[in-house]
Amino acid sequence: MNDVRPKIVDCTIRDGGLVNNWDFSEEFVKDLYENLNRAGVEYMEIGYKNSPELIESNGAGPWRFCDDQFLKKIIPEKKQTKISALVDVGRVKEEDILPREESVVDLIRVACYMKDIEKGIALAEVFHERGYETSLNIMAVSNALQYQLEEGLQKVNDSHVDIVYVVDSFGSLFNRDIEFLIDVFKKHAPNKQLGIHTHNNLQLAFANTLLGKEKGVTYLDASLMGMGRAAGNCPTELLVGTLDNPHYHLEPVLQLLEKHMIPMREKVEWGYTIPYAIAGMLNEHPRTAMQLRASDQKDDYVQFYKGFMTVEKHSQ
Amino acid sequence: MNDVRPKIVDCTIRDGGLVNNWDFSEEFVKDLYENLNRAGVEYMEIGYKNSPELIESNGAGPWRFCDDQFLKKIIPEKKQTKISALVDVGRVKEEDILPREESVVDLIRVACYMKDIEKGIALAEVFHERGYETSLNIMAVSNALQYQLEEGLQKVNDSHVDIVYVVDSFGSLFNRDIEFLIDVFKKHAPNKQLGIHTHNNLQLAFANTLLGKEKGVTYLDASLMGMGRAAGNCPTELLVGTLDNPHYHLEPVLQLLEKHMIPMREKVEWGYTIPYAIAGMLNEHPRTAMQLRASDQKDDYVQFYKGFMTVEKHSQ
Repeated sequence: MNDVRPKIVDCTIRDGGLVNNWDFSEEFVKDLYENLNRAGVEYMEIGYKNSPELIESNGAGPWRFCDDQFLKKIIPEKKQTKISALVDVGRVKEEDILPREESVVDLIRVACYMKDIEKGIALAEVFHERGYETSLNIMAVSNALQYQLEEGLQKVNDSHVDIVYVVDSFGSLFNRDIEFLIDVFKKHAPNKQLGIHTHNNLQLAFANTLLGKEKGVTYLDASLMGMGRAAGNCPTELLVGTLDNPHYHLEPVLQLLEKHMIPMREKVEWGYTIPYAIAGMLNEHPRTAMQLRASDQKDDYVQFYKGFMTVEKHSQ
Repeated sequence: MNDVRPKIVDCTIRDGGLVNNWDFSEEFVKDLYENLNRAGVEYMEIGYKNSPELIESNGAGPWRFCDDQFLKKIIPEKKQTKISALVDVGRVKEEDILPREESVVDLIRVACYMKDIEKGIALAEVFHERGYETSLNIMAVSNALQYQLEEGLQKVNDSHVDIVYVVDSFGSLFNRDIEFLIDVFKKHAPNKQLGIHTHNNLQLAFANTLLGKEKGVTYLDASLMGMGRAAGNCPTELLVGTLDNPHYHLEPVLQLLEKHMIPMREKVEWGYTIPYAIAGMLNEHPRTAMQLRASDQKDDYVQFYKGFMTVEKHSQ
């Protein structure tokens, strides 16, 4: 597996949409596709492909549902960069997924928790049948027991899923954790390609992604300036700018940052802040930190930290 | 050396002073000393101890020169946290350095480039004679040839210098670079303790510092919120919050962030930005990126990047 060149999956629209409620203009997404192509980035994740009948829209932009006719209007002509979309177990109707030849999408990624891994595999099998590349993104692996992880990976290994992801949902994994998990994934899903999706709570997203690459992971998730939920992700610009691959070109990425991400940064917040760091240190979901950042106590770090240290939360 | 517990050297005042021209209030520095003590941080670098006769002050705050009588007023009573100060080769007069017992300072760190290593050692020997702990911080090691590095380290090894630092001046070192350099330092300066000072151009400052720790480095430089020149340093809060040491307490650090660093951030800029990332990718000194950030073209990334790619700069 080590001789397979790593690929970048830019998740700006999908994971970044969790920050701005998928409020990306059509021009933004068209520019993104054009420039990621020129940059040599292999995949662009264009959003979630969950079903609007199963979740509330809450005014979300179209990238939360990725209607196929709409996507064809945005990307009338496919280029080198492939298109990916993410679905959540329980939030997608199988009948909404066209056969691949009728869709703009190439890769469908299924996100699930360990407890739903068979549901996730079953969904991925449907998409595989319809011609798509598929991945299974197992969330919150830091909370799974070892036997659950091993059994789950064995099931993935016996399926048609193409790629299985190490997902650091809480941004709480250190280099030794990443090395350990990748060894477990390799051992129990030896037939699968591996992916890695990191969060930057502890400023380790890029470092952990590089480490994954060195250990043979071939699908590297990233986003422009790391735009993504809470502390955000591994920055696409750092991967394009530092991976030694003659197909990668930094300038088209810099153009995107200059034109689109500077104004975006002025509208919404993501990236390393102290509450997200605290959540990462404690291996906690970032939701309480996100609530804090959206409140007028956003910089009350001590109070926030003490909230996690109360007896109630840590009673046995 | 691996059984020696790592120590944190908080460089907020010294390296952060490069951002705000050492404009820290006395209250800031007193609070910092008090809270670093409560947090269990082993060293606080209180500034530069260069001589005002040898460099222009340019309106800098007192932490650029660290007059001994002034320091005694700020820290009338020493606690657990030791005090360190940095000097640059060629900018310090030996006669300005009191014997240790008359000074607040415990550790004097000498910064030099490889070409000045004998000058650096000679200075450190003087400070050693006067009773101080000493370190030699060799800057820009990524630009030294291997034989220069080996010979320099051998000289350090034969001196009374206590600690020799791996300094990633340009924030351009990756994990494999850090591992490689630490192995070289261990081999050619086996009698010395090691330190590491990182910059965050590629979002690798914390990761590289942790890696140093795992490889047996015992002096870990950091600063609050990573405040330091250009892309800044490894954040003190991440080391205090994640190193498994019963003496470390995060809450006093969070108090400092809340009280002092939030307002500081509103006044001056440091940390990851695209121009600093570009400088790190290209192993360039951050000065041109700093000039850009101080200009009204601060977000003209493409133009900035092209400036490095011109024929003139890369002619043979």
